[in-house]
Amino acid sequence: MAQVDTDRFLRDLNELRKIGEYKTGVHRPTFSPEDMESRHWLMERMRECGLEASIDGIGNVFGRHKGPGPHLLVGSHIESQNQAGWLDGALGVMAGVALARAGLPVDVVAFADEEGHYGSFIGSRSLIGLLEDSEIDTLTNRYHGKPLRQALKEAGLEGLPRPRLDPARYKGFFEMHIEQGTQLESQNLRAGVVTGIVAIWQFRIVIEGMQDHAGGTTMAERKDAGLTAVRMLARIDREFPMLCGPRTVWTCGRIALDPGAPSIIPGRAEVLFQFRDIDTEVLERLERCMRSVVQEMNRTERTVSTVEVMSRSKPAPCDPAMQAALAEAATKHANGQWQHMPSGAGHDAQYMARVMPAAMLFTPSINGISHHWAEDTKEEDLALNIRIMADAAEAFLRG
Amino acid sequence: MAQVDTDRFLRDLNELRKIGEYKTGVHRPTFSPEDMESRHWLMERMRECGLEASIDGIGNVFGRHKGPGPHLLVGSHIESQNQAGWLDGALGVMAGVALARAGLPVDVVAFADEEGHYGSFIGSRSLIGLLEDSEIDTLTNRYHGKPLRQALKEAGLEGLPRPRLDPARYKGFFEMHIEQGTQLESQNLRAGVVTGIVAIWQFRIVIEGMQDHAGGTTMAERKDAGLTAVRMLARIDREFPMLCGPRTVWTCGRIALDPGAPSIIPGRAEVLFQFRDIDTEVLERLERCMRSVVQEMNRTERTVSTVEVMSRSKPAPCDPAMQAALAEAATKHANGQWQHMPSGAGHDAQYMARVMPAAMLFTPSINGISHHWAEDTKEEDLALNIRIMADAAEAFLRG
Repeated sequence: MAQVDTDRFLRDLNELRKIGEYKTGVHRPTFSPEDMESRHWLMERMRECGLEASIDGIGNVFGRHKGPGPHLLVGSHIESQNQAGWLDGALGVMAGVALARAGLPVDVVAFADEEGHYGSFIGSRSLIGLLEDSEIDTLTNRYHGKPLRQALKEAGLEGLPRPRLDPARYKGFFEMHIEQGTQLESQNLRAGVVTGIVAIWQFRIVIEGMQDHAGGTTMAERKDAGLTAVRMLARIDREFPMLCGPRTVWTCGRIALDPGAPSIIPGRAEVLFQFRDIDTEVLERLERCMRSVVQEMNRTERTVSTVEVMSRSKPAPCDPAMQAALAEAATKHANGQWQHMPSGAGHDAQYMARVMPAAMLFTPSINGISHHWAEDTKEEDLALNIRIMADAAEAFLRG
Repeated sequence: MAQVDTDRFLRDLNELRKIGEYKTGVHRPTFSPEDMESRHWLMERMRECGLEASIDGIGNVFGRHKGPGPHLLVGSHIESQNQAGWLDGALGVMAGVALARAGLPVDVVAFADEEGHYGSFIGSRSLIGLLEDSEIDTLTNRYHGKPLRQALKEAGLEGLPRPRLDPARYKGFFEMHIEQGTQLESQNLRAGVVTGIVAIWQFRIVIEGMQDHAGGTTMAERKDAGLTAVRMLARIDREFPMLCGPRTVWTCGRIALDPGAPSIIPGRAEVLFQFRDIDTEVLERLERCMRSVVQEMNRTERTVSTVEVMSRSKPAPCDPAMQAALAEAATKHANGQWQHMPSGAGHDAQYMARVMPAAMLFTPSINGISHHWAEDTKEEDLALNIRIMADAAEAFLRG
């Protein structure tokens, strides 16, 4: 069996953690100086273990194994959400490096911008030919509005090629990731073999009212875009529980009232709303409900609300043979301490699953915290899971 | 009777409109370069009509009549909300200048920051001794966070004295202002004699939950601060109509979810909420209701909500004799085309009313628009109202 160096794996992770360090987590938003430093640091680590390292025109870092196949592709993303955790993404990339260090025939990848600072999975989509130049032209940073083209230029990536993966080169894609929930922890489990990745359907709802002085305009006369947003979201909050599946989740992550001043009736509101499920029928039912609520608001409120589809991903089931290899290794290293489970979060693996067999392994998240600097996983769980993945990779390559 | 030069009045207003011009309105936030330019421009206008012009340590511009009394104080504020109207505030200041030009014994004042970029009525409060240095130390800009002290320094106001008004100098304070509503326009009226100014009670509600990944955290596990905000505001939306007075208004002008990203469950929400009424009992009833709703949320939701009082002003009735003078002049110039009415908006007059008789005159707002660059009033209505105010001022001084 391949001998994976768990100490070195943890040391690598802790070294990476220093780049963009923020409290106990990291702040490495896509294409920030810290993010680019981490990408170049990663290329050094890849070269150390004999891989041919390169970075492409969308920021994907690739480490190509020089020996003969069959090969595996292993990786995740290396940038972080703002002021977020040290493991999310970085863990899966460094798992790839650990497997390469152990001598396994793996290519290692860090997909650019899985965290969506500029777009939706632009790194993994670029690698499978699902990202047009025309889309790159239109994308801007969600937080500060910088155009993606400008960010690429400032990061020194302008004009670099965007090569496509050759799926024929790979037997499959493995991604290790933190669970980002408490399903494992609450049952005292140490590993999760992922059955599939839920789809995320994401919408921007814009409400146009009339900006007015909060003192001079009677309640009867108002066209308050913020109040419509509240009534709309309260209605969705009542309707969705009657229509959802057992593991559906829905989230309003942003409500922006314009101009956002205490004494001005908001003339415009922007709501970011999403829901996730493994079942396309459930997703379609929820979208119909959401659109009915919006339509109802347009009938009852003196504002105009419109729905814009931001993204609709597809559910991505994991490969059965790869799941079986992970399950066998998990039983060997942590018998009775692991489970099969779906992934509620989107991952690059969902795009890799479109062109090759793909599978994921989850580590427990302490207190379920993620996308926050306090995110963490016990070191012994990190070490356990890299052993599981190494054994599973080797067995799957042999099988 | 005093002969007011209405053409000159309109010319002055249109000249001022060019400072910080934004579409058909202006952008002159407090202590911005445009705001300071307008203050210095105003001091020139004051000197032109024989007033002794000065600016004080909080930015109030004062034009002191050099002749004998009895005097009136006339004015309003000159800064604007962001991208807002050309008349709001500026109208009342230039009305003062017009009366001074007509030879009336008036002091003219432009109170600093009535629009609340940094605080609540800091200009008028400073003039009546209700603004401590310690409060100035703590205030910051609502939109970009700059400390007030720094803004004063950059505006060249640091270290200037903050003199108090001598109320004994004045028979009363007149303020002309746009209505900021449609009460006049919808009844084809051209002037409003204000009976009193409503009180504004303003609160910041902070909701603390737990920031988490929107995919990995089940609905049952979430501590979603944004969802609590929606439920809270929806509940207030149901309760307030059963408790309010006939002209009460309430407004949520801002809902800020932290971090505000589409795939992150908001860990914190901040809600700015206010209500206005002329009747203190109604205000107290609404505050009790709001606090009950917050308490209910703390009982039913897995988040912690707290209420912070931002400001609680007092209702300010207008002086009967000054109202009578305005009413008589309005009848002379626009018989059957004016009404008595309360002011739903707060104005500097409410603080002047604490130390001397005070009154206000409203001009119609086209389509009721205010705090928006499209705000406007017909020129013939502006001219009519300056005639009403000049006659009223003269009669009240004589009376």
